[in-house]
Amino acid sequence: MNLEKKIEQLKQIKSDLFQKDFLLTWEKSDADLKAILEIADILKEMRGQNISPRVFDTGLAISNFRDNSTRTRFSFASASNLLGLAVQDLDEQKSQIAHGETVRETANMISFLSDFIGIRDDMYLGEGNKYMREVGEALDEGAAKGVLPHRPGIVNLQCDMDHPTQSMADLLHLQKEFGSLENLKGKKIVMSWAYSPSYGKPLSVPQGIIGLMSRFGMDIELAHPEGYELIPEIVEMAGKNAKASGGSFNVSHNMSEAMKDADIVYPKSWAPYHIMEERTKLLKNKDTNGLKDLEQTCLANNAKHKDWEYDEAKMKLTKNQDALYMHCLPADISGVSCKEGEVNADVFEKYRIKTYHEAGFKPYIIAAMMFSNKFDNPAAVLKQILDSNRKRVLL
Amino acid sequence: MNLEKKIEQLKQIKSDLFQKDFLLTWEKSDADLKAILEIADILKEMRGQNISPRVFDTGLAISNFRDNSTRTRFSFASASNLLGLAVQDLDEQKSQIAHGETVRETANMISFLSDFIGIRDDMYLGEGNKYMREVGEALDEGAAKGVLPHRPGIVNLQCDMDHPTQSMADLLHLQKEFGSLENLKGKKIVMSWAYSPSYGKPLSVPQGIIGLMSRFGMDIELAHPEGYELIPEIVEMAGKNAKASGGSFNVSHNMSEAMKDADIVYPKSWAPYHIMEERTKLLKNKDTNGLKDLEQTCLANNAKHKDWEYDEAKMKLTKNQDALYMHCLPADISGVSCKEGEVNADVFEKYRIKTYHEAGFKPYIIAAMMFSNKFDNPAAVLKQILDSNRKRVLL
Amino acid sequence: MNLEKKIEQLKQIKSDLFQKDFLLTWEKSDADLKAILEIADILKEMRGQNISPRVFDTGLAISNFRDNSTRTRFSFASASNLLGLAVQDLDEQKSQIAHGETVRETANMISFLSDFIGIRDDMYLGEGNKYMREVGEALDEGAAKGVLPHRPGIVNLQCDMDHPTQSMADLLHLQKEFGSLENLKGKKIVMSWAYSPSYGKPLSVPQGIIGLMSRFGMDIELAHPEGYELIPEIVEMAGKNAKASGGSFNVSHNMSEAMKDADIVYPKSWAPYHIMEERTKLLKNKDTNGLKDLEQTCLANNAKHKDWEYDEAKMKLTKNQDALYMHCLPADISGVSCKEGEVNADVFEKYRIKTYHEAGFKPYIIAAMMFSNKFDNPAAVLKQILDSNRKRVLL
Repeated sequence: MNLEKKIEQLKQIKSDLFQKDFLLTWEKSDADLKAILEIADILKEMRGQNISPRVFDTGLAISNFRDNSTRTRFSFASASNLLGLAVQDLDEQKSQIAHGETVRETANMISFLSDFIGIRDDMYLGEGNKYMREVGEALDEGAAKGVLPHRPGIVNLQCDMDHPTQSMADLLHLQKEFGSLENLKGKKIVMSWAYSPSYGKPLSVPQGIIGLMSRFGMDIELAHPEGYELIPEIVEMAGKNAKASGGSFNVSHNMSEAMKDADIVYPKSWAPYHIMEERTKLLKNKDTNGLKDLEQTCLANNAKHKDWEYDEAKMKLTKNQDALYMHCLPADISGVSCKEGEVNADVFEKYRIKTYHEAGFKPYIIAAMMFSNKFDNPAAVLKQILDSNRKRVLL
Repeated sequence: MNLEKKIEQLKQIKSDLFQKDFLLTWEKSDADLKAILEIADILKEMRGQNISPRVFDTGLAISNFRDNSTRTRFSFASASNLLGLAVQDLDEQKSQIAHGETVRETANMISFLSDFIGIRDDMYLGEGNKYMREVGEALDEGAAKGVLPHRPGIVNLQCDMDHPTQSMADLLHLQKEFGSLENLKGKKIVMSWAYSPSYGKPLSVPQGIIGLMSRFGMDIELAHPEGYELIPEIVEMAGKNAKASGGSFNVSHNMSEAMKDADIVYPKSWAPYHIMEERTKLLKNKDTNGLKDLEQTCLANNAKHKDWEYDEAKMKLTKNQDALYMHCLPADISGVSCKEGEVNADVFEKYRIKTYHEAGFKPYIIAAMMFSNKFDNPAAVLKQILDSNRKRVLL
Repeated sequence: MNLEKKIEQLKQIKSDLFQKDFLLTWEKSDADLKAILEIADILKEMRGQNISPRVFDTGLAISNFRDNSTRTRFSFASASNLLGLAVQDLDEQKSQIAHGETVRETANMISFLSDFIGIRDDMYLGEGNKYMREVGEALDEGAAKGVLPHRPGIVNLQCDMDHPTQSMADLLHLQKEFGSLENLKGKKIVMSWAYSPSYGKPLSVPQGIIGLMSRFGMDIELAHPEGYELIPEIVEMAGKNAKASGGSFNVSHNMSEAMKDADIVYPKSWAPYHIMEERTKLLKNKDTNGLKDLEQTCLANNAKHKDWEYDEAKMKLTKNQDALYMHCLPADISGVSCKEGEVNADVFEKYRIKTYHEAGFKPYIIAAMMFSNKFDNPAAVLKQILDSNRKRVLL
């Protein structure tokens, strides 16, 4: 059987995900990433066959969104529910934690009966990932001291550095589109800045993409106007990754040039690194006027690069005039969701359904991160589920 | 056994509800409506006997309330939970969907692992029901293109035209009160406007009532002050329904006259159709001053009709001085929840508990809508549940 | 087996909790309290052993937080989930209940398929507990009249008088720390006011502590600056309790003096009773200026008592210089969460993990309150769970 075979394949992968948080893809081995992809694929297949991979009879999954979210919120809720967990949202507005309580205390208070905490914290450069680690250390202490019956796992639902549930969903999408991870070797992927009428979009998606995709032998092109840099350490790491995996890494500043012969394109706006640093300072100082000024300067700068739209002319420069278009959604679509934006409406429409498929992997990626954190031998548990043949819907 | 008999009866009804949204009662056949009533009744009975009709091991039910709600929110949560689904609220304030994203995208993004979407959208005339259909089309596309593993069903939790979960709960209440749908034939029901100190109450309840109750051979009296019209097409349809079902339909403008010999009365405030049209325009234009002016004009108009209170004198005009009083709640009760309102306090008190019973059918009506959407042969699934004898509470 | 023995012990306790709300510890018999402690302990042990005490296949637990909450909100969610209930929050901002609807109506509307309602209402003196009883009477009527299939239980999640889920968790903590309730006899516990830079903290914790701890033969010392009285009737009752149980009760006004030879200390800020009365009047009148003036007066008064910090010098006066420090959290820790506060940072750090353990009992206390409300013979049901050996996590 298909599912049995997939579980057999998973068994061969020597991953080290048990009881480990998933905070950055670049902290994980290739085997770890492959295991996540396999488990996600198996869980998706099971649900499609009306097999319920519910492994928790009860339990809570805490969501802590420090920024707005629809897609990731629903993906997290879906993943938690699929495995049998109830989502409890930590709404910092409705709670007492703004009253000067320390992170380590709150982390324990919400975790007495929790199995996972999903955190989105992407507003402050240098803060989001750090915050997740602080929570993790608090949970370590709580578990070590017997406050918590077990150490809840943390899933990074987007931070200032990485957006691993997004980039891993993107990778699973590529695996499906190109047939295998092997087939990605030698493919050219362009992570390109694109014009947007809004400002302050996080860096985590482009960083997550170059940080992850550089590990599979692809030729990575990072394209953006001068001054729109990402965090330098991550760009450097991506370059090293690319070399090590037999691919290449190049930074360039002309969108059309970059698109030439691309197999995959990911045109998406972001705010420049140095602006995000400045913005973080202003946010911390609650300098409202400063923030307004910065926004104006930024928008004016952005406006100089309206030609960074992924349009038909640029698409025609790609491999077979048909590079796979990717986006984390929602895209700023010219004439649809804004006057001028990241992508031409016709071009977007051509790949629209594919971007939905891309997004559809996220719930399963999150579920796979949880699954592999919870079970030392995920293949064995999946086999047990398969054999029990528990139905998701009574039929 | 009682439940077995009911399931046998259900088997005889040739309904066509499988994989169909429930958006308007007047799009459904009589058999469809009867099937919903039977299933709701069976589910209520099962729960009463501590049998758990849980058919989903996991799954999400999305609620999208574009207006405030308590009763319907809890009814939807109760129905979802009864069948085994977890509710995930789409809070448009906490999400990114205000950022210019199209409906069709969001509809898919929230539906990867969802079984139902319940929508309340009653603020804008001409919009609510349309929005639900837009969502439905997006889900059709998502399912057809393999983005979604199955097409989630949509339940209309109140729109600008109809409030089918309310009117169907009301109908089940009438069935119980009068013994059968057959017994409703020849009964006189008065859907009457009533005075309220607030303005802008939706038209969906009176429209839903005349649209549905006109199909069972009743004599419908729609009473309101001149100028307080409902959507003309729905009034016209109700008239045709009444004739076709062997009943009658009459519009009148004197509350006391209307109440004479009534078997059932439903005195409830609403805003005039043409005012709602104007309000919709102003809301779309965000014309705050215009809205304030309209409210003032409206309240002044309403104040001319304070005699449209359902009081003891009017009650005495009804059949045996004891027509069944109905209300979707909360009612504007004179001297209780407002100075002067829709109903006299003593009269309301007389029927208060009955209005609670009326409201108590809503969760089961919603559950029945979900159940019949999900299963091609609901009777067979209900029989399976009965035979499995799964307990709701361990005892 | 350990769990079997505990269940045997529970069987011996003649409690009367079945279908009774838990509103005030002083309405409960000693046997009732002991039964709650035992059940909580058993549920915690079961979960630790991966046994799922899920007794509801479906069902709702309503939370109604009329004030902010993190700890109690998560404890209620955890308890509900552990037993198999889904939490549905009654958010009074998102609902229609502000529109003049009566309590009795809303109570029924949300309860058609609900098993429990947890209420926090601690803002208005003389109101919170009263409100819970109003809800309870409405539910009594709903159940008696067949509106509700069964009477949902009410759990007091903090009111103006008591905070029973907190004080009972504290008591279970003491039972664990000292080995048994018997061992608490003759121990000195100091419930002391402490300085805080905030104002208006509820009285429910200190009142709950003296009201409950006075029943186990302890020597209770209630210490506060003059003018910082609690509700007189509760203080009086605590005095009588202490005498009846073979302990003692003393009120004093010097923090250092009070701490001498203490076995247990509970230093925690609260607002004076008469201030809370005044504040309640101002809140009811929506007198914003009056509230601001009162806050200023209060903060100025508080500032005269900055020496009411639990510091090392005071700790050294306690039994073996090491009295068990307790707090409901979050504490105002000097130099950590505020400049000057309730407790010195080093002292807090010494007992920090113990306060986490203390807090960790709350979810199980709430679950035990629900469990004993739902089942006439909790021991038998727990035995059934133990025998069924249903796993919480598939392993």
